[in-house]
Amino acid sequence: MVRLLEGEDTDRMDALSDGVFAIVLTLLVLQFQVPDADATGVPAALADQRPLLFSYLLSFAVVGLYWIVHHNLFQRIVRHDRVLLYLNLLFLLTVSFLPFPTELLGIYGTHFTWTLYALNFSFVGLSLTLLWWYAYRRGFTDETVDHRTGRLVTVRGLISPVVFLVSVGVATVSLSLAFVTPILIVPLQMLWARYYERGRE
Amino acid sequence: MVRLLEGEDTDRMDALSDGVFAIVLTLLVLQFQVPDADATGVPAALADQRPLLFSYLLSFAVVGLYWIVHHNLFQRIVRHDRVLLYLNLLFLLTVSFLPFPTELLGIYGTHFTWTLYALNFSFVGLSLTLLWWYAYRRGFTDETVDHRTGRLVTVRGLISPVVFLVSVGVATVSLSLAFVTPILIVPLQMLWARYYERGRE
Amino acid sequence: MVRLLEGEDTDRMDALSDGVFAIVLTLLVLQFQVPDADATGVPAALADQRPLLFSYLLSFAVVGLYWIVHHNLFQRIVRHDRVLLYLNLLFLLTVSFLPFPTELLGIYGTHFTWTLYALNFSFVGLSLTLLWWYAYRRGFTDETVDHRTGRLVTVRGLISPVVFLVSVGVATVSLSLAFVTPILIVPLQMLWARYYERGRE
Amino acid sequence: MVRLLEGEDTDRMDALSDGVFAIVLTLLVLQFQVPDADATGVPAALADQRPLLFSYLLSFAVVGLYWIVHHNLFQRIVRHDRVLLYLNLLFLLTVSFLPFPTELLGIYGTHFTWTLYALNFSFVGLSLTLLWWYAYRRGFTDETVDHRTGRLVTVRGLISPVVFLVSVGVATVSLSLAFVTPILIVPLQMLWARYYERGRE
Repeated sequence: MVRLLEGEDTDRMDALSDGVFAIVLTLLVLQFQVPDADATGVPAALADQRPLLFSYLLSFAVVGLYWIVHHNLFQRIVRHDRVLLYLNLLFLLTVSFLPFPTELLGIYGTHFTWTLYALNFSFVGLSLTLLWWYAYRRGFTDETVDHRTGRLVTVRGLISPVVFLVSVGVATVSLSLAFVTPILIVPLQMLWARYYERGRE
Repeated sequence: MVRLLEGEDTDRMDALSDGVFAIVLTLLVLQFQVPDADATGVPAALADQRPLLFSYLLSFAVVGLYWIVHHNLFQRIVRHDRVLLYLNLLFLLTVSFLPFPTELLGIYGTHFTWTLYALNFSFVGLSLTLLWWYAYRRGFTDETVDHRTGRLVTVRGLISPVVFLVSVGVATVSLSLAFVTPILIVPLQMLWARYYERGRE
Repeated sequence: MVRLLEGEDTDRMDALSDGVFAIVLTLLVLQFQVPDADATGVPAALADQRPLLFSYLLSFAVVGLYWIVHHNLFQRIVRHDRVLLYLNLLFLLTVSFLPFPTELLGIYGTHFTWTLYALNFSFVGLSLTLLWWYAYRRGFTDETVDHRTGRLVTVRGLISPVVFLVSVGVATVSLSLAFVTPILIVPLQMLWARYYERGRE
Repeated sequence: MVRLLEGEDTDRMDALSDGVFAIVLTLLVLQFQVPDADATGVPAALADQRPLLFSYLLSFAVVGLYWIVHHNLFQRIVRHDRVLLYLNLLFLLTVSFLPFPTELLGIYGTHFTWTLYALNFSFVGLSLTLLWWYAYRRGFTDETVDHRTGRLVTVRGLISPVVFLVSVGVATVSLSLAFVTPILIVPLQMLWARYYERGRE
């Protein structure tokens, strides 16, 4: 049976992953508390929860982006073995943990909670990049993925974890600055893709 | 890899969306609290939660209707690019936020909570209409969608957000009237479709 | 677009329904509370929650059986229109509400909570039978479903709601007897199928 | 209709199972509590929750492994009857119950809570092995599964429940030793597969 474990399709890996992503995206809203106030006090009580809105939206955006990346990578990964299943579970572990640091950050908003939050997102990015690198090295990708594309995507996948790690350092100087650091991820990824393409010609 | 992102199938977009819809529909019931009363006090304690039933049923109905619309639109959308993935995530953001204003409305039932609730549903409708409009303009729809159908569906999609926005105004006059305003959505959509069809001949 | 709503496949209806079933089956466990006791008091504190185990297992079993029935019916339903989508949402509404009366019953175990619980399950059965009846009458079923099978399944679908309604009456005499009444459902369904088959020859 | 219940595809069984697995994997994080402390007390308050991390990671790993096994087995199971649907529901019952003993173990970490936890995982393994054994005996597996593979997988499936049962005994001597006993599962499964393969030649 051990040998039977290498299979052609990745449909159920997609299904499990989509399930985890859908639940994480939806659980994030549970951090908002219905205030225990009288009717006139509700607007003020909700205004107190505004910091939660920042961590909620940031988490939703980053998780959403990672769903797109996962979706994108698995369009090219057409075979798997047992190790790839493990690596996908490791990735889902990091994703499914996110609601906890998101709520911590939303409530406390300290340097310490930002560190936990940024580390969690770093692990998300690192485990997905590891998964891609393994799939590409083992030849589980389809024929559209050549050597250069394999490397391009691997390096691109490291940009997001590095930015989150840098943001932990930035947070020692200014917490507000650290909060906006993740905005750098998308332009940096584009720059890297352009730079790499140019070197190709 | 950037260019690889335009793909033919929308299967996993469907899967993620169905997951979020299923979870939102099921989470809505969590707003009901098992009362902390002795056995004889349970009927009275549950009767106190009756207002929650209204917001529960309204949310279930509107979310269910939007699932039908999403299902319907994606039967015609057969290609996607990165922007469409973003727009679908934006739509899911608005859907996944719904349990919070639903519970707020059910507990407080004030003009303020109705405003939040109606605004959230307006964003749901606007983001889905934006998604459709983009897909149609970029030619991601199948051959059954001609110019007229594209416009018909776009305008029809704006009816629901407009009705919810109008209901915020209605709520300044009468809250009970605002609560029943959404009933107008389905007949208004039918009227518009009929009017448009007639102009076609 | 209105006419476009009649479609061939029921894949996404399956997907949404499976999602709601999976979440309801998993949410049921959330009614169990980690006791707030010291380490030696845990066994006793858990023993206090034994009544919850009954309502948990009964709900899991009945929801599971309804998933099988839904799965079974949708193997024969191969087309749909807008009304069928509505009827499926109505069915999912009744299913997704179940965790609440399940917890109420597990905690209070009174005649009143059994009534709520049994009524909820009656609505589950009635809405699914209505859905089947509509699909069969509109000719949305495949060629293996003839007139007799259509009626056989419709009547069989009414057995479970009737048993639950009867159990509400039984509960006025003996609550324990009411709790075991649902066991009658499976043998009664078999009897009806056998009786109907015999009449056929 | 009763006879109609034997079907060719197992797609929706996969879908329901993937849904339950995805939700269980994601619900496990809900056991972590956002501490009710001032900002400086957060690191210490989180450190108090470290035991939860052990039960969280162990549960995630074992549930993940069982998803892989389920995924693997259902690649070979190509037909089903009503009994197989029941056995799959029984398996999902044991899986969906896991968050509760996981949280109990994480909070109390006593011999009693380990017993509950290990028993639950034993039931997970036993019900899945029963499911496999039934499918194989009824000939629902594909042509790659011969008599020897059928037996190999059945016996292999019993290793995990036996290890968990043994760990309950181990816990009477040393709780820490019991916690690491599950590590034996994977090497023991490999040893068994190797031993069986050798006897084959």
